[in-house]
Amino acid sequence: MPNQKLGTQTIAFTTPPVILGHAAVAGKKEGDGPLGQSFDYISIDSYWGEQTWEQAEAMMQKKAFALAADKAGVAPSSVEFLFAGDLLNQCIGSSFGSRESDIPFFGIFGACSTMGEGLILAAMTIAGGFANTVAAVTSSHFCTAERQFRFPLEYGGQRTPTSQWTVTGAGATILSATGNGPAVTHVTPGKIVDLGIKDPNNMGAAMAPAAYDTLRQHFEDTGRRPDEYDLIVTGDLGALGHEVVTDFFAKDGVKLRTYQDCGLMIYDREQQHVDAGASGCGCAATVLNGTILNAMRAGRWNKVLFCPTGALMSTTSAQQGESIPGICHAVAISTVG
Amino acid sequence: MPNQKLGTQTIAFTTPPVILGHAAVAGKKEGDGPLGQSFDYISIDSYWGEQTWEQAEAMMQKKAFALAADKAGVAPSSVEFLFAGDLLNQCIGSSFGSRESDIPFFGIFGACSTMGEGLILAAMTIAGGFANTVAAVTSSHFCTAERQFRFPLEYGGQRTPTSQWTVTGAGATILSATGNGPAVTHVTPGKIVDLGIKDPNNMGAAMAPAAYDTLRQHFEDTGRRPDEYDLIVTGDLGALGHEVVTDFFAKDGVKLRTYQDCGLMIYDREQQHVDAGASGCGCAATVLNGTILNAMRAGRWNKVLFCPTGALMSTTSAQQGESIPGICHAVAISTVG
Repeated sequence: MPNQKLGTQTIAFTTPPVILGHAAVAGKKEGDGPLGQSFDYISIDSYWGEQTWEQAEAMMQKKAFALAADKAGVAPSSVEFLFAGDLLNQCIGSSFGSRESDIPFFGIFGACSTMGEGLILAAMTIAGGFANTVAAVTSSHFCTAERQFRFPLEYGGQRTPTSQWTVTGAGATILSATGNGPAVTHVTPGKIVDLGIKDPNNMGAAMAPAAYDTLRQHFEDTGRRPDEYDLIVTGDLGALGHEVVTDFFAKDGVKLRTYQDCGLMIYDREQQHVDAGASGCGCAATVLNGTILNAMRAGRWNKVLFCPTGALMSTTSAQQGESIPGICHAVAISTVG
Repeated sequence: MPNQKLGTQTIAFTTPPVILGHAAVAGKKEGDGPLGQSFDYISIDSYWGEQTWEQAEAMMQKKAFALAADKAGVAPSSVEFLFAGDLLNQCIGSSFGSRESDIPFFGIFGACSTMGEGLILAAMTIAGGFANTVAAVTSSHFCTAERQFRFPLEYGGQRTPTSQWTVTGAGATILSATGNGPAVTHVTPGKIVDLGIKDPNNMGAAMAPAAYDTLRQHFEDTGRRPDEYDLIVTGDLGALGHEVVTDFFAKDGVKLRTYQDCGLMIYDREQQHVDAGASGCGCAATVLNGTILNAMRAGRWNKVLFCPTGALMSTTSAQQGESIPGICHAVAISTVG
């Protein structure tokens, strides 16, 4: 058996798949934020040259994929499988973004955890010996998300202090069986956790228990201490969710010294008026494929635990009074053996 | 390398994962149809004892999974990973259906091809050495689909002759590294194919080119002739799509002698007034996990090529004048070595 299951939920890759290339594209607001310099492409046009925001989102995925393949030094046509997903109904950002790619396609849905789900499945596809080169792509767009999940933009709906701002951005990662770059060493696919939180304007709190569950399991399965990671980063829990996870671990007597959240990194919360932080599949995707992987290549961080989180709900489930199921997938990335 | 890539798009498993258990649950109309006897459970209540149709769909997935695990003789808690998806916005049939499962969860979206995508990823997870027992589940519900994609049921909208009837049903498959049962020998994950068809009431025609593309590639990659399969079955192309695929192969000089379509099997089209046939993730899922796998166990068919098809569109993409991207995943199942 070439790969090893650790504990109940974690897979350790004997030959860790390498992140050969990665790219992040983002909107103007994200470009103006503290991480703006780390993104490969910024569009000041919210339509990205297209006719609709949904087409813009598909264009963002196309652009992120093309840039990542180019930076990886691989021909797009040599990518053997593509994992992609997004927040739009029936994931049209991904299917329309990939329809001209001519690459066997797996649509995935993990809400804002999608970048993690894609990385896990892409890494498993390579480590299982099924392919040499696989891509994972995801996106979100503030305008498509607002009108689908909340209000028409023209309405100017009031935002609650716990609400999060959907990132306009897409990220793509090209993984390979060989080559140079940070490698995916361990993955801990998450379980759905639902503690009964029903407020769709407080997703961070709804997703935090899932993040705690997956992180705790990852440490237990691998025997690693949180301090071994130069960075532990959840995907878009925002201010409240970050606090909940920190508190949960504190109750276990564990202090997370290197813990950050993508939703707190991408905007200047005060200057950019984003309330509790950022959200959307594009949040963790751009922070990973822009900021984090660039910093790992530059030697700033060697071991990172990337843990994007998702709220697996819809407007229909919220209107029917359902609580919000959360999920979190953990991906350990390392520049060292 | 334990597994082999054949040609450009097909994976041949050296140790084919075994279908240890499978179950199909369906609604009254499906129970009254020609395949009714092959389903494990029929509900005459469209709410399945729940408060909403969306909750009913989640309940169907739960029930199909529980029955499949029971028939497989495995404890549900021993299932290591779960792949699930459906047609509902943000796939809530799957996330709410699985939220109490306590199993690491991968949400997938392949529209009506989802059963094929789930089987492929579940089989890869086992054949890659990542797990011993993995499940794939999917569903659709006539009432949730009608109100999400078309009209309120009370409106009584007219149906076109090319329209297809969404199946109320769910299917679940339990795959294992060892044991007795039909095995998944080859998988051909499909590419997105979009020939520009825009009529959302004629999905069969929109998906047929994708089915042709994947089937043709499967035969090329494996060197198998269509006649080697006792049954080649596409997922819900309906009458028109079935004819298109047959015609495309005829133009290549290939006669498909054993070719059927799940969308033409599940209802009596004339008696049950379903126009061009059936559709929905639950269509291919119930026909596979009820009818086909039962028939394989009974020795009626030994080699089956299961090829569910999906239309990767949404109401938004249709309203914006977009054409319909199609996809088809092929899964070769065999009772012989």
